[in-house]
Amino acid sequence: MSAEEAAAQQQQQQVGGDPAPAPESQQLQQQQDPPTYRCLVLTGHGGYDKVKLQVKKGLPALAKGDVLVRVKACGLNFADLMARQGLYDRLPPPPVTPGMECSGVLEALGEGVQERRVGDKVLVLHRCGLWQELVAVPANHTFLMPEGMSFEEAAAIPVNYISAYMMLFDFGNLRPHQSVLVHMAAGGVGIAAAQLCKTVEDVTVFGTASASKHEVISQGGVTHAIDYRSRDYVEEVRKLSPKGVDIVLDPLGGSDTQKAFNLLKPMGRVITYGAANLLTGPKKNLLAMAKMWYNQFSISALSLMQSTKGVCGFHLGYLDVESELVSSAMSKLLELYGQGKIEPRVDSTYHFEQVGDAMRRMQERRNIGKVILLPEPKKEEEAKKEEPKSEKTEETKKEEN
Amino acid sequence: MSAEEAAAQQQQQQVGGDPAPAPESQQLQQQQDPPTYRCLVLTGHGGYDKVKLQVKKGLPALAKGDVLVRVKACGLNFADLMARQGLYDRLPPPPVTPGMECSGVLEALGEGVQERRVGDKVLVLHRCGLWQELVAVPANHTFLMPEGMSFEEAAAIPVNYISAYMMLFDFGNLRPHQSVLVHMAAGGVGIAAAQLCKTVEDVTVFGTASASKHEVISQGGVTHAIDYRSRDYVEEVRKLSPKGVDIVLDPLGGSDTQKAFNLLKPMGRVITYGAANLLTGPKKNLLAMAKMWYNQFSISALSLMQSTKGVCGFHLGYLDVESELVSSAMSKLLELYGQGKIEPRVDSTYHFEQVGDAMRRMQERRNIGKVILLPEPKKEEEAKKEEPKSEKTEETKKEEN
Repeated sequence: MSAEEAAAQQQQQQVGGDPAPAPESQQLQQQQDPPTYRCLVLTGHGGYDKVKLQVKKGLPALAKGDVLVRVKACGLNFADLMARQGLYDRLPPPPVTPGMECSGVLEALGEGVQERRVGDKVLVLHRCGLWQELVAVPANHTFLMPEGMSFEEAAAIPVNYISAYMMLFDFGNLRPHQSVLVHMAAGGVGIAAAQLCKTVEDVTVFGTASASKHEVISQGGVTHAIDYRSRDYVEEVRKLSPKGVDIVLDPLGGSDTQKAFNLLKPMGRVITYGAANLLTGPKKNLLAMAKMWYNQFSISALSLMQSTKGVCGFHLGYLDVESELVSSAMSKLLELYGQGKIEPRVDSTYHFEQVGDAMRRMQERRNIGKVILLPEPKKEEEAKKEEPKSEKTEETKKEEN
Repeated sequence: MSAEEAAAQQQQQQVGGDPAPAPESQQLQQQQDPPTYRCLVLTGHGGYDKVKLQVKKGLPALAKGDVLVRVKACGLNFADLMARQGLYDRLPPPPVTPGMECSGVLEALGEGVQERRVGDKVLVLHRCGLWQELVAVPANHTFLMPEGMSFEEAAAIPVNYISAYMMLFDFGNLRPHQSVLVHMAAGGVGIAAAQLCKTVEDVTVFGTASASKHEVISQGGVTHAIDYRSRDYVEEVRKLSPKGVDIVLDPLGGSDTQKAFNLLKPMGRVITYGAANLLTGPKKNLLAMAKMWYNQFSISALSLMQSTKGVCGFHLGYLDVESELVSSAMSKLLELYGQGKIEPRVDSTYHFEQVGDAMRRMQERRNIGKVILLPEPKKEEEAKKEEPKSEKTEETKKEEN
């Protein structure tokens, strides 16, 4: 082990607050000592270091209707980055464990659970708290994983695909021959949206992403990739489609929502689902917030009527009580997965102790697809292998800046 | 002829500016003199007397792609009432002939018209100018009438049914087991909307109308009729459906749009398509206007996201260039008519010289279904028959007030 590696490992252990036990010793521990489980905890609002690895003792309590899941992979979402900065009101105040989606295996069933068995592999969607090795969640927040789906793929599905599905097919009512503008087309929702658009005949997808990602997103279903860093995306869309588009998925907020609205054809609609424009760096940016609120899109009934357009707001975090809506979207998605029509794209996987790096990757918009967190401890061997990756990462970073 | 009847006839002739010729003399006239045609003209903004019957000489000029239609029946719409008061910006300034929909028979084809024949019976949807005996309109603004459809029925279809169709199925994306609140459920759009809701499995329709109309609207597809004059419709809906509804069609505007928005379930949407609250009497009401603008619904992207709802504005008057969208809706509607699934309900018919009475009926919300205008002159015999009707009308009026 080089001096650098040793230092890195040391640091991880400090972040964790506890040395990460090797799998063998863990098994032993389970037999002899009270069980423990690793989890990530948001300890306060701020930069990447605010999410810390902790080890909890005991087991999560199973309420009636709950199941106990041994988590194998978790999804990282933009909302998690916002939550860390204190910009997401659906997460309880710190200290709290974030995490809205994961995949895993059922280890125990609470009272009254009929439709699940111990050993079932499941996808989980829940309001928060899933970034831990063991979680107790209501059984109806779990969905059976189809054959052949990996845990990483499964963790990449719930938030991104359900959001894209409901926005395109419920609010959007996407039909053949229509056109859609997908911002952040290389992000989790973007990748999902382009794949879902392809399930409808002759849909034109305009997708914004930096130039280095164009090849991948074009393969994934984007008809016209637009480099929003070097071009005005509104002009680019107008050049190709002078009348505008039928649907805009808007994760940006601020003045981009107005641009989206202006780009709509009559009977078109913008579905706004985020405020990525707020996230300019690892910490809360007051200037960006002021700009965002100042430019926030607002519209009157009269203007909507005179333009004959629609504006919808979407946030999966507010749909947690609507389990029927969510289940219905999920079962259609799993059907599409079975038909090979959607294919979650995993960008990268990070162990819990690397959560800061994972967040940074997403914050800096370097990912193409989903960033996944793994509860299991990072092995020494992996740490060694990863060195070349982090070099490459630095290169990409330069290119993007 | 009683003294009263004679006075009435005298007045009609004055309104017309010209005595209405009997059909026989009209035919003679056509052979000998240059042709003339009757039309209604909005001569200025104001009360019912601002729409006058006039007779024009010659024939409407046929441009390339136009067809000449001998009009048999015209539809009266809320927008026409607003236009008369100067509250509708899609009608050119007076003097101008209103009228957005009619039915009739083709009398001549302009250059380049391939898909129509002289003698074809058609429905017409056009921005304005259809309240006249003869009109020239682009051929693609006409639709062939199916077998068995009367001219009155045909004139009752375009505006109301296309609006209801596009609002429910395009913006609304109405699906089985959902619920819809239809305001003014006994009006043209309301009747159409309830019938269209019935084409989808297990849709619950809440319809507001005064109590005397409940029987009719219940037969027409309204599941729960609500008397908005004696009850708080929001409370009534909440009693039956505590979670709210999936779709609200809002022709009222002002504070009712906010109420509609609040009544939505998550993923629900309100489609606002009018400002009937502005029409409190026959003339422009500045207080109502001030109240309306003061209470006008306006919403920010953030509020939409936090509620996970949508707001759409609809106005067929702004879709006149979108002939593909409109044609597609119309062909689906004619298919539904052929299957007996929709059935336009004609409330009453008025001759051109009675346009003021027709408008008053609609203004005072006495109609159940469509109010139709007939270009052909009123015959003496009809005038006699109508007396009992106008008495009944007075009764209804008292009841409604």
